[in-house]
Amino acid sequence: MKKLSLDTKHKTYPIYIGENLLSDDKYILPHLKNNQVLVVSNETVAPLYLDSLKKSLKSIKPATIILKDGEEYKNITTVNVIYDKLIDVKFDRDCTLIALGGGVIGDITGFVASTYMRGVSFIQIPTTLLSQVDSSVGGKTGVNHPKGKNMIGSFWQPECVLSDTNTLKTLNKKQISAGLAEIIKVAIIKDKQFFEKLYNNMDSILSLKQDLIQDVIYQSCKIKADIVAIDETEQGIRALLNLGHTFGHAIETILGYGNILHGEAVGAGIKLAAVYSNKYGKLKDNKKDMIVKILQMAQIPMGMDKNIKVDDYMDVMAVDKKTKNGKINLILINDIADVYIAQDVDKQNLHSFLSQ
Amino acid sequence: MKKLSLDTKHKTYPIYIGENLLSDDKYILPHLKNNQVLVVSNETVAPLYLDSLKKSLKSIKPATIILKDGEEYKNITTVNVIYDKLIDVKFDRDCTLIALGGGVIGDITGFVASTYMRGVSFIQIPTTLLSQVDSSVGGKTGVNHPKGKNMIGSFWQPECVLSDTNTLKTLNKKQISAGLAEIIKVAIIKDKQFFEKLYNNMDSILSLKQDLIQDVIYQSCKIKADIVAIDETEQGIRALLNLGHTFGHAIETILGYGNILHGEAVGAGIKLAAVYSNKYGKLKDNKKDMIVKILQMAQIPMGMDKNIKVDDYMDVMAVDKKTKNGKINLILINDIADVYIAQDVDKQNLHSFLSQ
Repeated sequence: MKKLSLDTKHKTYPIYIGENLLSDDKYILPHLKNNQVLVVSNETVAPLYLDSLKKSLKSIKPATIILKDGEEYKNITTVNVIYDKLIDVKFDRDCTLIALGGGVIGDITGFVASTYMRGVSFIQIPTTLLSQVDSSVGGKTGVNHPKGKNMIGSFWQPECVLSDTNTLKTLNKKQISAGLAEIIKVAIIKDKQFFEKLYNNMDSILSLKQDLIQDVIYQSCKIKADIVAIDETEQGIRALLNLGHTFGHAIETILGYGNILHGEAVGAGIKLAAVYSNKYGKLKDNKKDMIVKILQMAQIPMGMDKNIKVDDYMDVMAVDKKTKNGKINLILINDIADVYIAQDVDKQNLHSFLSQ
Repeated sequence: MKKLSLDTKHKTYPIYIGENLLSDDKYILPHLKNNQVLVVSNETVAPLYLDSLKKSLKSIKPATIILKDGEEYKNITTVNVIYDKLIDVKFDRDCTLIALGGGVIGDITGFVASTYMRGVSFIQIPTTLLSQVDSSVGGKTGVNHPKGKNMIGSFWQPECVLSDTNTLKTLNKKQISAGLAEIIKVAIIKDKQFFEKLYNNMDSILSLKQDLIQDVIYQSCKIKADIVAIDETEQGIRALLNLGHTFGHAIETILGYGNILHGEAVGAGIKLAAVYSNKYGKLKDNKKDMIVKILQMAQIPMGMDKNIKVDDYMDVMAVDKKTKNGKINLILINDIADVYIAQDVDKQNLHSFLSQ
């Protein structure tokens, strides 16, 4: 088991990474304030892991909400269902919400926790590779609006994060690849050695070799945690973590939530950012090729965005959270471990780039 | 003009109190990050003050949302209407929401500001006496759930608060009295001299004598600000500000939002707390009488709760935010400027008290 500590201005909390953590009572119980626990999960994850989780809660019988599986349920309607449940079971300010599932479950549950009675505790148990390295680190919560991803949300840190690498074994290959997109992303942003490690060991990572995957998750979380510790609410450096996300969110919004995995969209977005950085910026051909290659090795599907109309792209990017005063900002790449915020990118360049 | 500075862990911001502040451009403009401004108001307040506010915004043409007037619109449906508007007009993270109205407008607008794109700026322009002394100080935001008041919300501090005492002149007497209930409350909690000042000058206060009312608002905000500065998120001492609120919220919930003003319910709640403290605690007869008397002098209607069934009271109090593990906590009074949190009050006493 590896343990990482995340320090933010508001809270310091542990991220545990390892096998069989879910069924071990020593991780969750110490973080509860009373016996009021609501587990939020979905129809895919609950049958696999809810019973183990319940066992680790010992005498506490949690309330449960089992949502349908999919990004399309990450909305205000679902948030209301959870509020209603919390009020029905008369949970008070000392209650704890546990998110058992992927990023969608974590984001919704965190948002409800941040707004029920002006804020209650929550614990993240991410069960996908993507959520173990991404949404469970950093305290971003949120739900989608029909016109934009994560438009409604908050910053709210959990009491602890439990990344049980056993849960990765039930994921399909698409989901592993989606997670790898985010891992590759943080390597490109911050760590050449880590990038090389990923580049040279992709097959073993894809086959979930335990020591290696735990190490990869740990390093990935560490890079993200270091950035978040400096800039919790994304006033500056944290924005670098949005590499691939402006393009990626646009692809997700246009193709429709649920038709593409978030990680797949981010992977496609990183490729676009690399090609754009090569064409209009300083990224050298060989580095651009390495980035495209590692995304391919990670089996991230590309080209799902080729039928998107340029005007649709431009429209959606104009309401992205990273857009300011109508100016589109992109995270671009000079080199591995050298990325930057390009403010107010030339819309004509962008338009002609997306046309190709 | 009087200026008060509120210091919280997250932010320091000014509260301006005085005449004709609304139409003066020097207060709002310095707090804006860009020209994206949404004014949220209601059908009662907007016709009176929206034009003046627009003038003070100079060349900025704000978007506006004019809600129907009333606590019954302080709900998630209204929140969604505001989200939709913000997204329609493509406002980004640097936008500012301005709440022009009473507590309902301030609470909803603050909640939307705290959750749109994970948090944007907002400015409070409270136009009722109650909101000038209460909801605009301290950063509590929220909306009601059909089963409980302010069950959904956040702590989110404004950029500044503009309390224009001119706006009090268009209030009816009921609204002035409702505001006085909160003013009397903070005096009972913290300040004997202030209590005496209110007791001895109630007629002049009711007639809104300008110097006096500005002073009363300032002192009232100051007491609350000092408490909030110590305990922003109500882990301890801030709970004292809930004097009269456990009873008061129950009365509001049972009688139905919109059928009674929040301040009136709090006034009735303070009286119940005083009588209870006299019967089961240490509050002396003469002090209890003074408290009842000052509430009467402030023309706060009493007895609207006399037809409420005891079981309804007990049920609603069981899901109040201040209730923990099913235990009901009340703020009780030993003496003027000496109040305390009574944890886990005897339910049998409470039941027989409410039966009388």
